Amino acid sequence: MSKEKPSIPKGTRDFGPAVVAKRNYIFGVIRRTFEKFGYLPLETPAMEQLSVLTGKYGDEGDQLIFKVLNSGDFLSKTKQEDIEQGYKHLTRKISEKALRYDLTVPFARFVVMNRNEITFPFKRYQIQPVWRADRPQKGRYREFYQCDADVVGTNSLLCEAEIVQMINEVLTHLGLTDFTIKINHRGVLAGIAEAIGEKGREGEICVAIDKLDKIGREGVRKELLERGISEEAVGKLEPLYDLNGSSENKLEQLQSILGETPEGQRGLNDLRDVWTYLEGLQSKALTAQNESGEERLMLDVTLARGLSYYTGCIFEVKVNNVSMGSISGGGRYDNLTGMFGLPGVSGVGFSFGVDRIYDVLEELQLFPDSSQQSTRALIVQFDKEAEKYALPVLQQLRDAGISSEIYPEAAKLKKQMGYADQKSIPYVILIGSEEMASGKLKLRDMKQGEQQDLTVDEIIAKLK
Amino acid sequence: MSKEKPSIPKGTRDFGPAVVAKRNYIFGVIRRTFEKFGYLPLETPAMEQLSVLTGKYGDEGDQLIFKVLNSGDFLSKTKQEDIEQGYKHLTRKISEKALRYDLTVPFARFVVMNRNEITFPFKRYQIQPVWRADRPQKGRYREFYQCDADVVGTNSLLCEAEIVQMINEVLTHLGLTDFTIKINHRGVLAGIAEAIGEKGREGEICVAIDKLDKIGREGVRKELLERGISEEAVGKLEPLYDLNGSSENKLEQLQSILGETPEGQRGLNDLRDVWTYLEGLQSKALTAQNESGEERLMLDVTLARGLSYYTGCIFEVKVNNVSMGSISGGGRYDNLTGMFGLPGVSGVGFSFGVDRIYDVLEELQLFPDSSQQSTRALIVQFDKEAEKYALPVLQQLRDAGISSEIYPEAAKLKKQMGYADQKSIPYVILIGSEEMASGKLKLRDMKQGEQQDLTVDEIIAKLK
Repeated sequence: MSKEKPSIPKGTRDFGPAVVAKRNYIFGVIRRTFEKFGYLPLETPAMEQLSVLTGKYGDEGDQLIFKVLNSGDFLSKTKQEDIEQGYKHLTRKISEKALRYDLTVPFARFVVMNRNEITFPFKRYQIQPVWRADRPQKGRYREFYQCDADVVGTNSLLCEAEIVQMINEVLTHLGLTDFTIKINHRGVLAGIAEAIGEKGREGEICVAIDKLDKIGREGVRKELLERGISEEAVGKLEPLYDLNGSSENKLEQLQSILGETPEGQRGLNDLRDVWTYLEGLQSKALTAQNESGEERLMLDVTLARGLSYYTGCIFEVKVNNVSMGSISGGGRYDNLTGMFGLPGVSGVGFSFGVDRIYDVLEELQLFPDSSQQSTRALIVQFDKEAEKYALPVLQQLRDAGISSEIYPEAAKLKKQMGYADQKSIPYVILIGSEEMASGKLKLRDMKQGEQQDLTVDEIIAKLK
Repeated sequence: MSKEKPSIPKGTRDFGPAVVAKRNYIFGVIRRTFEKFGYLPLETPAMEQLSVLTGKYGDEGDQLIFKVLNSGDFLSKTKQEDIEQGYKHLTRKISEKALRYDLTVPFARFVVMNRNEITFPFKRYQIQPVWRADRPQKGRYREFYQCDADVVGTNSLLCEAEIVQMINEVLTHLGLTDFTIKINHRGVLAGIAEAIGEKGREGEICVAIDKLDKIGREGVRKELLERGISEEAVGKLEPLYDLNGSSENKLEQLQSILGETPEGQRGLNDLRDVWTYLEGLQSKALTAQNESGEERLMLDVTLARGLSYYTGCIFEVKVNNVSMGSISGGGRYDNLTGMFGLPGVSGVGFSFGVDRIYDVLEELQLFPDSSQQSTRALIVQFDKEAEKYALPVLQQLRDAGISSEIYPEAAKLKKQMGYADQKSIPYVILIGSEEMASGKLKLRDMKQGEQQDLTVDEIIAKLK
């Protein structure tokens, strides 16, 4: 047995009770919202076949997948050549399984494997950890949770509208008020490329304008030119950064610029439908404003987001006035299950970044007290006699659904009170000889520091 | 991209919505009970340092740990000799991390790493998956959940009594009535070994009598003799299989047999204390009987359970009249953190086997309807006009907290009804031209097949 000081792998975390409680509060709000909108839970295994994951995340992604060593004598089927060909080749010989890298590929795999049993449209949500061998840094972990909701098997833009609703409800329930839901459309981006005379080059354009926030207008211009976009095209593009007014206004301006391009027109039509659906749903995302007076739901033609994957609307959500990247995002894809040979399954999905939401709620002190509560009451005991008296009291409290404990030994009062304090237990019940004689127990409010003499029934009524 | 038919690793499972809902029902009952007794949640990473896990589960266990390949060029630091020395040696060179094998070792590791911040007694529960490279078979998986609760840092036998209470409450809440909580004590087993003249050999004796159910009295006799236990000792041991009457009665009989052995006396004293605590807690585990009229809480001197690990009371729970092994078990240990160089931390813990509980509840049809419900209401739509009418209705339902959906396209009625059926949605709301004119919508109860014309408010009142 190793007696060295134990540690955990870098980039992973233990979550103690207080943190688990807060995380569960966030998960609970997300889960209830997903379910209110008819999304149902799916859980897939932590390990997938390596062949299911390989080739889905690009070469760099493949390198970041955690591979699991075959069990037993994994060398029994390898030859000297396998080793000489280097680690990438050898990996395929000694590892058949790998840890889930995201929730999207396992979802696609599930849909393909169960396509004959699934009723479409299939609305599923999934809240599970994923693992990536990224270099750990502040806010980036090797194990972290994703919270995805996707609906596949329908083209209806009502789904996009409902995603806006869900984002708005979750963040509102979490107490956030100053956030912006940015929306754009792949067709709009393709239309812009065509309209500025660079048809088909929206990929390169997007990679560049995606950095607008970081490197500024001049930086983007430089990058666009380096990528071979013409001066003239860049000149036509730049006014689009400044589109302003309401999203309705922007749609009108874009109509005059992109109206002639089929892709642009498709994008504008889709976006208008999303707005119409949101009006039907009387969405508060349409009427709320952020603190600087802008619309909460904002059409942003510079929003690019993983172009290779999405084909329709795309979303991204930012909490304003905190230093934190986007906390949610998603979009529509046309061919999720194509990677497994099942074409034609269109869908739209999005994801919440729970670690980031957690940090934002901490920064803004938005966790409610109720998310931090543990045991409601601790019974402090002084001796065997008091312990005997206390046991049926304890049982009464628990039968009434009140989380409660008795300190398991007749330790010093200071130690028992310290335990309540450390565990943030809000009430302590003291039972001494006087209390046993009168039947009125001392209930101490740990926050206020006040004490009351109450019967068990009165205590239950108060704590319930 | 691979176009082959995707699959999942053997011994792992996808859980679709209906199964997740039922599993969450079980987890919910367990979690609420743990918390009612003052246990708080802990979560540890899926991956641990391989050195933390190695040597804790015996040689066979070490083989069953899933190892994770080092990321990047894992061969860069290996030499030809490392490969020639075989896979066990090579594993240590190319793998530093492994998947959690149980929740006990990570808990011990957490306690040691955080011993200066933790307030003892530390009551934690942990509900997370573990992974074992066991040969998969019916009821045995390579990925499965464990639900552990442990308290460390106190010797109080009240903890043992509360474990009996928690087991009793969880199983009762799940609707089980005919189950037996078996309890024994390591000291009693040691005392028996001494009393029959085989002091210190309780390990071998226990391995044999643990099989009493499977191989019968003759089989156990044969095995004991093979293990070198004397004929005389076996002769003295056998009457103990037949100890009968109430547990109190058994304690008395044992007192006369083991009273002289220090370990036996320690065990009997502890067991008596547990009973006294349970009486104080007015435990229903003491008063309830199983269907054949036996006590629910039963002292069973043939209960052995992982002797190498436990040092005090041991538990095991069996549901009667179903073909299923134990669904819960645990015990007291003296030296959990000794493996990491921190001696003297005593604790007691137990675990629920959720996969087995799931199968039992299925077999006995004990899952309540509420655990199977998904969306409460589906709005069926016929055309764009009805859709427009339906959207604010949908929003009203959701604002009232009712999980509801609208079918996202004006598909054929049969298809929409089939969707509700497949998803077990109990109510369907039909909106046609007549309904729009009158403001009374058709609410169809899918189970009863009945329809009612109701206003939105009436529908909300009914579904809430």
